[in-house]
Amino acid sequence: MGRWLRQVPEPAPVPMKLDYSRVFTDRLDGQHGFPRARLAELVHRFPAILGEVESFRRAGEFGFYGLGRQEATVTAIRRFAEGVGQAYDHVLVLGIGGSALGTRALINALRPAAWNELTDEAREFFPRITVLENVDPVSVAGALRRIDPRRVLVNVISKSGGTAETLAQFLVVRQWLDQALGPDAANRHLVITTDPEHGPLREIAQREGIAALEVPTEIGGRFSVLTPVGLLPAALVGIDIAGLVAGAERALEKGRRTELLKNPAALFGALHWAADTWLGARIHVLMPYSDRLREFAAWYCQLWAESLGKGGHGTTPVAALGPVDQHSQLQLWLDGPRDKAFTVIQLARAGTGPAAEGAELDKGLAYLAGRTLGDLLDAEQRATVETLAQRRCPVRVFRLARLDERALGALFMHFMLETALAGAMLGVDPFDQPAVEAGKILARKHLSEMGRAT
Amino acid sequence: MGRWLRQVPEPAPVPMKLDYSRVFTDRLDGQHGFPRARLAELVHRFPAILGEVESFRRAGEFGFYGLGRQEATVTAIRRFAEGVGQAYDHVLVLGIGGSALGTRALINALRPAAWNELTDEAREFFPRITVLENVDPVSVAGALRRIDPRRVLVNVISKSGGTAETLAQFLVVRQWLDQALGPDAANRHLVITTDPEHGPLREIAQREGIAALEVPTEIGGRFSVLTPVGLLPAALVGIDIAGLVAGAERALEKGRRTELLKNPAALFGALHWAADTWLGARIHVLMPYSDRLREFAAWYCQLWAESLGKGGHGTTPVAALGPVDQHSQLQLWLDGPRDKAFTVIQLARAGTGPAAEGAELDKGLAYLAGRTLGDLLDAEQRATVETLAQRRCPVRVFRLARLDERALGALFMHFMLETALAGAMLGVDPFDQPAVEAGKILARKHLSEMGRAT
Repeated sequence: MGRWLRQVPEPAPVPMKLDYSRVFTDRLDGQHGFPRARLAELVHRFPAILGEVESFRRAGEFGFYGLGRQEATVTAIRRFAEGVGQAYDHVLVLGIGGSALGTRALINALRPAAWNELTDEAREFFPRITVLENVDPVSVAGALRRIDPRRVLVNVISKSGGTAETLAQFLVVRQWLDQALGPDAANRHLVITTDPEHGPLREIAQREGIAALEVPTEIGGRFSVLTPVGLLPAALVGIDIAGLVAGAERALEKGRRTELLKNPAALFGALHWAADTWLGARIHVLMPYSDRLREFAAWYCQLWAESLGKGGHGTTPVAALGPVDQHSQLQLWLDGPRDKAFTVIQLARAGTGPAAEGAELDKGLAYLAGRTLGDLLDAEQRATVETLAQRRCPVRVFRLARLDERALGALFMHFMLETALAGAMLGVDPFDQPAVEAGKILARKHLSEMGRAT
Repeated sequence: MGRWLRQVPEPAPVPMKLDYSRVFTDRLDGQHGFPRARLAELVHRFPAILGEVESFRRAGEFGFYGLGRQEATVTAIRRFAEGVGQAYDHVLVLGIGGSALGTRALINALRPAAWNELTDEAREFFPRITVLENVDPVSVAGALRRIDPRRVLVNVISKSGGTAETLAQFLVVRQWLDQALGPDAANRHLVITTDPEHGPLREIAQREGIAALEVPTEIGGRFSVLTPVGLLPAALVGIDIAGLVAGAERALEKGRRTELLKNPAALFGALHWAADTWLGARIHVLMPYSDRLREFAAWYCQLWAESLGKGGHGTTPVAALGPVDQHSQLQLWLDGPRDKAFTVIQLARAGTGPAAEGAELDKGLAYLAGRTLGDLLDAEQRATVETLAQRRCPVRVFRLARLDERALGALFMHFMLETALAGAMLGVDPFDQPAVEAGKILARKHLSEMGRAT
């Protein structure tokens, strides 16, 4: 390993820092944004919102508030993962929507850095992982071609147990296992994550004696990343799930504070509501600067869109990635309509990574000399926030000192809290998704009317 | 290979089919959308738009109109690719924005299906490919750790030759090659794609004798996928670049038609303008149903946002993927604000892929019995279009009989034409990006003020 892989020591950890000053008129251009004085209106309204949340909770909603303390679940999943850890080289997750996006975010965020640090020998210990969402025949055939059925553990995930895409995948993968291993052996390569009692997958698990984990009844798909839905795949590939849960608990502690200005998730939810209602920001851009949060932004889009998009309400989430979207969407944001609000997630990177050196660093490139890739990323993530504010775009900033299990658990929980509280403010139920049923019924009708291939 | 990989014969090819009926009042609910009679206004306005385009072209703009005929370029790139084809196992592309998104779209669309059909032996012949966009130290370290420097060809791509992220990556990768191979050998592992005359990368190529290809001066980054920017990486991994160019020429032929209703790109551009101006559709969702067009949607987002987002104009593009986003954003689209227009790209898939079979197909799952994954995808892509229209959302449909080089070349060109014509209608210059410079200057300032790691 040469100089390009040189590691500079991590800075001392500091808590996640939130900066919301660039939504106020005095930090934009004196006209856009809203005056700081209007914060008082949000503060004033908060106790009523908290009261609503409490009554929801008594009615059995907001189940995800319980996800900060789940020692028994963590222990059970770890035991399961350690037991099978040696037996499989590959984990294949079948799921879609809330049964896939959280797992993708977990792996994307926590796998690469840990992976880079492992020796080749240690890396052999942890299985690879593939998440199949779409029923695209090319993707499914490609995945099954790459994977050895003798060395795979298939985790079939559906809260309801009846998701058409996941069930179709399951039936295909089951045949594939049956043909390679015989039907009795196939069951040992399957683990189902679904509702504790109801639905087709639960029935299949019971009838055939397939290992099964439970998604708590009171927690819907898009709030389920920190249940066995996400925790099992995470544990199987070596992610510290106790750290995830501890991080979530830390965000929950803050989320229980009754003073709005000391409750970051509630405050961010309120500011989002204000940007929508007072500033006409109909679009919300979430822009992390680390490649490792690309999938987190996709997870957030489902959480926000499906929770709040109802009854004519709902801002549209847009997932972005810095610096990639500086070269793609930034022109529109800076110079297009003033109909957007922004959240930038910065990760402290200055001083990390290889440095730019070489004979080419004359003239126009001198500004890069001796700078690390992390320096450049750091400079850009700050410059974009300032440029957005200069162009009168309201922007909130998360600054993370590091991205590990605790930080990611806290981020997941922060956004779940923020979304649920924004729902209470908008007066919509953040936990249902009533509009999507019509399309499912229509798709089944088309399927039944189709000519058969066989 | 078992039954699950059974291939049903492809249906006879039919041309790309466009359906725009679901933007008219009579196909929505009688109130939303716009009356068919208003099409006449668009038809009436079209000659003036064509006149503007002609004057732009005489001024040297709209250079991408020339990309349907480039025999010499195709021959040169093929010769280069065939010459090095045997020498490298891996192609590493360094680029961002218009120098990465098109290549990602090409590989995503054309690599998987071809890959599945190859034998293991044939697959060994073609190199793997990695596109590095972001300067995230973790991603860069991970990629360089996986790649053998003795077996890599690095394609450094920047139209201007001075893109900070790409230059920083180049300097790091150059050091890595130097250390592994020695400086003289390193140059043989590099090929630069940049402006024919100007910029730091062109100077470096000339000074050090590194192989270099040209991005035509008159074609900007986001319109450059069918120049050597995208064609070289495509050719290196076995994509038929002559087919891409032929597909583009077919779209260009249609795009030269002076009658609006017979010119699909112009008509779609006009309908997009109408959805924005007449219906208040401030957001445009592009939703392909094939996994193989996921990256195409990201390419489109840059093209649209950076071309049209200026002077307070510009609708916001949102990339989606069916069926994944049926389980994510669909709830918002159907039940949230009426501020969106939709384009769904369907790919004929009925009868393809493995079929769902097995003892589990009783009761609630009977509707899946004997259905292939392609059947399900097909039923869903039709159902979503109908459901959107039922919920008063204007939706345009592309239906592709297949997704090969010709189809993808035509798709790229269709959207470039549509975007450029929409720019002419909006009265904005679709070929500049004036607002993003301020952020670049600020990032350099931060970089110069930063403490140095060394």
